[in-house]
Amino acid sequence: MRNLCMTVAYDGTNYNGFQTQPIGSTVQDELEASILSLTGHKPKIIASGRTDAGVHAYAQVFNFHVASKIPAERWPLALNARLPQDIVVTRSWEVPLEFNSRHAAKRKTYRYTINANRHPDVFQRHMQFHHPVPRLDIGAMEEALQQLVGTHDFTSFASTQSQKADHVRTLLEARIEVDASTCRPGTVDQGFIHIFLTGTGFLQHMVRIITGTLIQVGEGKRKPEEMKAILQACDRAAAGPTAVGKGLALWNVDYGDLLPE
Amino acid sequence: MRNLCMTVAYDGTNYNGFQTQPIGSTVQDELEASILSLTGHKPKIIASGRTDAGVHAYAQVFNFHVASKIPAERWPLALNARLPQDIVVTRSWEVPLEFNSRHAAKRKTYRYTINANRHPDVFQRHMQFHHPVPRLDIGAMEEALQQLVGTHDFTSFASTQSQKADHVRTLLEARIEVDASTCRPGTVDQGFIHIFLTGTGFLQHMVRIITGTLIQVGEGKRKPEEMKAILQACDRAAAGPTAVGKGLALWNVDYGDLLPE
Repeated sequence: MRNLCMTVAYDGTNYNGFQTQPIGSTVQDELEASILSLTGHKPKIIASGRTDAGVHAYAQVFNFHVASKIPAERWPLALNARLPQDIVVTRSWEVPLEFNSRHAAKRKTYRYTINANRHPDVFQRHMQFHHPVPRLDIGAMEEALQQLVGTHDFTSFASTQSQKADHVRTLLEARIEVDASTCRPGTVDQGFIHIFLTGTGFLQHMVRIITGTLIQVGEGKRKPEEMKAILQACDRAAAGPTAVGKGLALWNVDYGDLLPE
Repeated sequence: MRNLCMTVAYDGTNYNGFQTQPIGSTVQDELEASILSLTGHKPKIIASGRTDAGVHAYAQVFNFHVASKIPAERWPLALNARLPQDIVVTRSWEVPLEFNSRHAAKRKTYRYTINANRHPDVFQRHMQFHHPVPRLDIGAMEEALQQLVGTHDFTSFASTQSQKADHVRTLLEARIEVDASTCRPGTVDQGFIHIFLTGTGFLQHMVRIITGTLIQVGEGKRKPEEMKAILQACDRAAAGPTAVGKGLALWNVDYGDLLPE
């Protein structure tokens, strides 16, 4: 047996998330079906983590054990020929037999995108939360965001459906990038607002609840300094709403020296 | 009566082109239905020109006469609330009664996008022709393209279905932009290749046939200097294949002083 590790990009619009579900139509199902088609054996894929329905990935990472002798570098083209067009395998390596994509992941980065222009972007509508009014106070959002960096109990920013025993996580980096290149001069357009969060692990809906709370700060409904109290409450009801899934993408998974850059 | 002029962006993936057809499902049908819904009267839209099935627009321009007194600036939001998500009206002006979007257009710019990276871009797959191999000679393509600038009989670069009596058109500007930001270092990735063509008017499939011919030049199947002979042949069979519609977008329509910048 060999252990193959791959990166995959997907448009999550038409899937019930990454991980296999009883209702079907998941990215994992499609990947396993393509490997079955290529090798004649259905593998069991291990991914860095799940993503929710409608959430995208630029570089999700997964691995599986397989007897096939096809060289690692040939797998992306072979699988892409068998996958639907909204899933594209982009890289592939052979890794040690004990490598596990979920356990070995050191840091993950998610990106959430708000389109703060007056009109939706017709070509990126599946990948953005359109928020045309009111104007967002980006400085206040940045100030609020920085209070979340560090190691905290993130219960307030986790789905009440979370089944994890421990809600302490470490947010390593958090930043907001405003892409003003899409603003039409002389309008209320504010551009695309990308929120990047890097951490050792994330709870269910964590990025989306942080985003929903930051938007309230940007709208002036909350003050940036409230973030500490929200964390301390350890109560989902203390935070803002869960931002819609389509604005979220798994951006990168970092394995340190275990995988090539 | 008033004459309203608007710009509209659309993702053409799910439409049989811009202009109303007996088989239905066109962008024009959707726009007219949204105006009917808002005003109670079905208008007759005049656009700068048609676009083919699967072809997109960043800023198509259209106008129509209407009795409604709704201020021009309110129309985009009112229509967008009634339009499907793949059509977005972005600007609106009241124009003189005699203004006609088709006749008044001075210059049009189209963009054709080739993804010359090894793997398709999952998020832009509806807007790019994926051409991973062989590597394209961009310099040769640019040299070929410049031979088309000027006033020529473009019969060789027009669909044989063209019903225009006169195939003489003026190509004012033509350029190739390579966006290498999407290339993965150390790979065969060549980036996104955007071909911009600006002219006073275009024949059916003209941009797509020019692109298909340029790709043959890029692949080394034709020499750049053959372009003159292809033009002189005045024969569709002399040029290359018609590149797939999804890579094409109407980028801009210029009305000089008749519309604000």
